[in-house]
Amino acid sequence: MDPRTPAPRWALVAHGGAGAIARGDLSPEQDRTYRQAMAAATEAGAAVLRDGGRAVEAVEATVRVLEDDPLFNAGCGAVFTADGRNELDAAIMDGADLGAGAVAGVTTVRHPITLAREVMQHSPHVFLAGAGAEAFGEAQGVERVPEAFFFTERRWRSLETALRQLGLPLPARPAGAAAASARTALAHDEGKYGTVGAVALDSRGDVAAGVSTGGTTAKRWGRVGDSPLIGAGTYASNLTCAVSATGAGEYFIRLAAARAICALVELQGLPLQAAVDHVIQGDLTALGGDGGVIAVAPDGEMAWSFNTSGMYRARLADRQPLAVGIYKDDP
Amino acid sequence: MDPRTPAPRWALVAHGGAGAIARGDLSPEQDRTYRQAMAAATEAGAAVLRDGGRAVEAVEATVRVLEDDPLFNAGCGAVFTADGRNELDAAIMDGADLGAGAVAGVTTVRHPITLAREVMQHSPHVFLAGAGAEAFGEAQGVERVPEAFFFTERRWRSLETALRQLGLPLPARPAGAAAASARTALAHDEGKYGTVGAVALDSRGDVAAGVSTGGTTAKRWGRVGDSPLIGAGTYASNLTCAVSATGAGEYFIRLAAARAICALVELQGLPLQAAVDHVIQGDLTALGGDGGVIAVAPDGEMAWSFNTSGMYRARLADRQPLAVGIYKDDP
Repeated sequence: MDPRTPAPRWALVAHGGAGAIARGDLSPEQDRTYRQAMAAATEAGAAVLRDGGRAVEAVEATVRVLEDDPLFNAGCGAVFTADGRNELDAAIMDGADLGAGAVAGVTTVRHPITLAREVMQHSPHVFLAGAGAEAFGEAQGVERVPEAFFFTERRWRSLETALRQLGLPLPARPAGAAAASARTALAHDEGKYGTVGAVALDSRGDVAAGVSTGGTTAKRWGRVGDSPLIGAGTYASNLTCAVSATGAGEYFIRLAAARAICALVELQGLPLQAAVDHVIQGDLTALGGDGGVIAVAPDGEMAWSFNTSGMYRARLADRQPLAVGIYKDDP
Repeated sequence: MDPRTPAPRWALVAHGGAGAIARGDLSPEQDRTYRQAMAAATEAGAAVLRDGGRAVEAVEATVRVLEDDPLFNAGCGAVFTADGRNELDAAIMDGADLGAGAVAGVTTVRHPITLAREVMQHSPHVFLAGAGAEAFGEAQGVERVPEAFFFTERRWRSLETALRQLGLPLPARPAGAAAASARTALAHDEGKYGTVGAVALDSRGDVAAGVSTGGTTAKRWGRVGDSPLIGAGTYASNLTCAVSATGAGEYFIRLAAARAICALVELQGLPLQAAVDHVIQGDLTALGGDGGVIAVAPDGEMAWSFNTSGMYRARLADRQPLAVGIYKDDP
């Protein structure tokens, strides 16, 4: 950050997943649609922050927009498991008190990020999985939907392709599945690593991070990725920064990548951009993993880093213009 | 470590859970039985290391003994969920290549630590949950047992007490449950935080860590604690150390405690004992959490730290005598 630029009072960074998204992969209409979607989600969170809302609220607001958008692998538009289901994971963390909430394998909750926040705020636990997480959501009055709500034609086709490659049988098409829409026809298949996430700094100086995903296409065996794992895909502490990751989840887990970035800021005194580059361009790449992160620090510094060809991303802060990027060479 | 003591070629530390275990809580016979159990488990891992085996093998061997011992909250002798089931979690990590495997919510696998190692070595994933993890175990030929295998009378009584306090209904007693045995009659209720774990250094210089648990008595909503979360309850890297935790899981998750200890060793250059004390006596205590950790470094330094009244623990290394402790003031 230019030292002459005053520190923003609030800041928000969002991502819509990293992966195989090279310039030329998207038509001009797709490119425009994704940029508009990232801008809209970022604006939803920024509106919370402008009104003096908390960072966790802004993170939730941004992620909810991305969950409802069938362009992204979270909520409606999530990828399918090998069994033909949508099993959704999410996490949220409040850097003010290290409060955290996470859910894995939920199938009927419209906004998993909201359920994660309920776990953080209204349970003695951090991490709830499967049917138990759904039951907790029911008790908390979280919005639930039929499983077919998450169905999109394009993700079903991705599942068909993946199962053929794996030599696995194709499950029955879910009952009540919606027909293909004009919007989902614009979706680009970013490969295996779709996720959505956000990090925010609010005017009280608190940071927060959140993430939501459907995981990987044709996942089996109850696989859980890095997204709902505090320290792997999500971490936030006012002492250091807030981080949200997307990518090959297993590598982010093995590095405890989000927590590792915070440690570099806290113990090495690295600037935020240097810390995210160290873990993504250095450690993650050396281990053979692909993906990216977004981050924000309590002083308002915003950062992102990815080693894939693209990452849907946007940032917006008090007294700074909206910046939206997709490809590696976007500014 | 005394600088005149030559560094051991191998080392192993084990724990059987931290909690309310003050001197005087145990009868002399209980005290003796727990010490013998910790010694036997430690010896099982040490035998692997003496024979030139790998650290991950030694960790698995130690944890398997503790899983089979009804004295401890893992495998046979695990606590019950509010639904009257035993839902088991485990994780293992190899510091040589940051390989990791973890399972949550398995109900028919005799040795969850072995299933975690299968996930690490024979799947593209790190973390499998629920029925999917069981199906993967079945495909890998991991030993499975009827659910009643895990039943112990004393844990059922703890469940009855907990459910009464919570005002929740008592589920039906599992079919095929074994009668109370002389050994389980000796078990002490350490409170909410039973876990077993081990860390090891082998003669190649590789470290590894593992953990296994039944979680907390009367847990609900698919609660997952820190044990199967890489970075929270378990972490291992040859660059730093191997750590296995036990305690109030939610606090260990929020701190990403195991990964935080490794960061202090790597980035601050703290000696291992200072690093574990920093996180347990410092960060964990400040956050209001209870528990402890064991750790070993590639140079052979062994450490433990806990802020509860006791932790079942033992350590043994090449050219060093076995040390077993239970209470705070044990050497």
